[in-house]
Amino acid sequence: MNLGSCSNKLIGMDWSKRDGVSDISSSLADFDDQCQFTVDFSRFVVVHGAGSFGHFQASKSGVHKGGLNQPLVKAGFVATRISVTTLNLEIVRALAREGIPSIGMPPYSCGWSTSERNVASADLSGVAKAIDSGFIPVLHGDAVLDDSLGCTILSGDVIIRHLAEHLRPEYVVFLTDVLGVYDRPPTDPNAVLLREIAVDEDGKWSVVKPTPQSMNKQVEITVAAHDTTGGMVTKISEAALIAKLGIDVYIVKAATSHSLKALKGELRHNIPDDWLGTVIRFSR
Amino acid sequence: MNLGSCSNKLIGMDWSKRDGVSDISSSLADFDDQCQFTVDFSRFVVVHGAGSFGHFQASKSGVHKGGLNQPLVKAGFVATRISVTTLNLEIVRALAREGIPSIGMPPYSCGWSTSERNVASADLSGVAKAIDSGFIPVLHGDAVLDDSLGCTILSGDVIIRHLAEHLRPEYVVFLTDVLGVYDRPPTDPNAVLLREIAVDEDGKWSVVKPTPQSMNKQVEITVAAHDTTGGMVTKISEAALIAKLGIDVYIVKAATSHSLKALKGELRHNIPDDWLGTVIRFSR
Repeated sequence: MNLGSCSNKLIGMDWSKRDGVSDISSSLADFDDQCQFTVDFSRFVVVHGAGSFGHFQASKSGVHKGGLNQPLVKAGFVATRISVTTLNLEIVRALAREGIPSIGMPPYSCGWSTSERNVASADLSGVAKAIDSGFIPVLHGDAVLDDSLGCTILSGDVIIRHLAEHLRPEYVVFLTDVLGVYDRPPTDPNAVLLREIAVDEDGKWSVVKPTPQSMNKQVEITVAAHDTTGGMVTKISEAALIAKLGIDVYIVKAATSHSLKALKGELRHNIPDDWLGTVIRFSR
Repeated sequence: MNLGSCSNKLIGMDWSKRDGVSDISSSLADFDDQCQFTVDFSRFVVVHGAGSFGHFQASKSGVHKGGLNQPLVKAGFVATRISVTTLNLEIVRALAREGIPSIGMPPYSCGWSTSERNVASADLSGVAKAIDSGFIPVLHGDAVLDDSLGCTILSGDVIIRHLAEHLRPEYVVFLTDVLGVYDRPPTDPNAVLLREIAVDEDGKWSVVKPTPQSMNKQVEITVAAHDTTGGMVTKISEAALIAKLGIDVYIVKAATSHSLKALKGELRHNIPDDWLGTVIRFSR
């Protein structure tokens, strides 16, 4: 992202006090008349998962299975939302401190709801309007109401796919803590990084690179017990659905040169041989 | 509020870790099979202002005056939203710890926007749905997009009035840090508490109790310099608009027996002489 800057100085947008000290004075000093401040950056939407937030509250109470009339589920719904919105706020603040005009848009409050776990409603116009106003909307996996189950957990992966379907971004990047998708758990020393996955008309996906001959193995995917939304399985199948729209998806390790290339859109026409990650593409 | 309880034990709904200790274990223990847990309380909406949060960020950057294309306003918009959503989360957590199934619904993300500072859109169905699902929606004064100004500050008082118009509650309680509305700043030792204010068909309001003869004075209202949304003036005029709908409004000091009476709805048919506060009513 090409961030707005003033004499290459960062314009902090989190003016909250930290340890009793507000950084508003230094921030305001940046806005003087001499300042050639331009807010000129790519149009972006950020969607984050719950990480260590939310999953525990959700799985302990069974929010993902519904049944809002049960006290435990109801309490878990409240507890899950508190946990994921706490994380959302921290992410919004971290982005704002870097001068990114981020706006938290918790899906529950943005009118997202599901029916049998499929997205039934979502205020996409609000997301579009925030982007048009020059903001970066920050959504997240959330506990939502479900028409048939009462409630469930809407994963960030499903949100990304729904946004992609309607907002038609140029590309989608999944940031994760490993280099990409492997043929088995990446902790396995023999795990092979899948460099390219092709999705066909029927939504079926197959590994293109490395070539199946060189692998000659079944892809094995596991899901962590606490993950209420399907872990890597959901991630890949949602990514495949996005790719089917003709939108390339990059699954890549956060905070690496590989993810930076993906985020900048540098991989759209040519993927260099030294790039490490997984690209999921529609094979016409 | 008649809270759900289990053997008179509180059911905490904030399972976040505090100082590294999660209270989820003790909370989960409350949900055993023996538990006669009932969630049976009044249908409520909570709207809070910004207090020491938000006002400073908003007034320093002029978010209330609009002009989102100016870097300072844009940064202030982001900073204001971070500040008010931080407060919202703290209030949601405080309520959840007391067993109240509260759900944060920040107006910006709930689709509230304005046109020339008047509410232009608001997702009231989301608020109604949350109430119907047994939750207590918690809204707040927020920075929002404005069709003509670009952006502005939507005060909690205006939100309450808009909700009252559409959800038609039995009564509305404004909790504040003084006993009610006075005829001049309550710090003035001669300030007189206005016990009853009548609103007529034209929306004009007049003091009924104490009787004008016994006061024989003009009511004087001041607004704090940092208050971007009009302070007590906005509060009273919005309260008058609510009263005009035939909905009684009580302005009362928080955390007193007087506010408890108001919140419980005990004042609807008869206001005891020892009750201290201001009631604003429609005089037909």
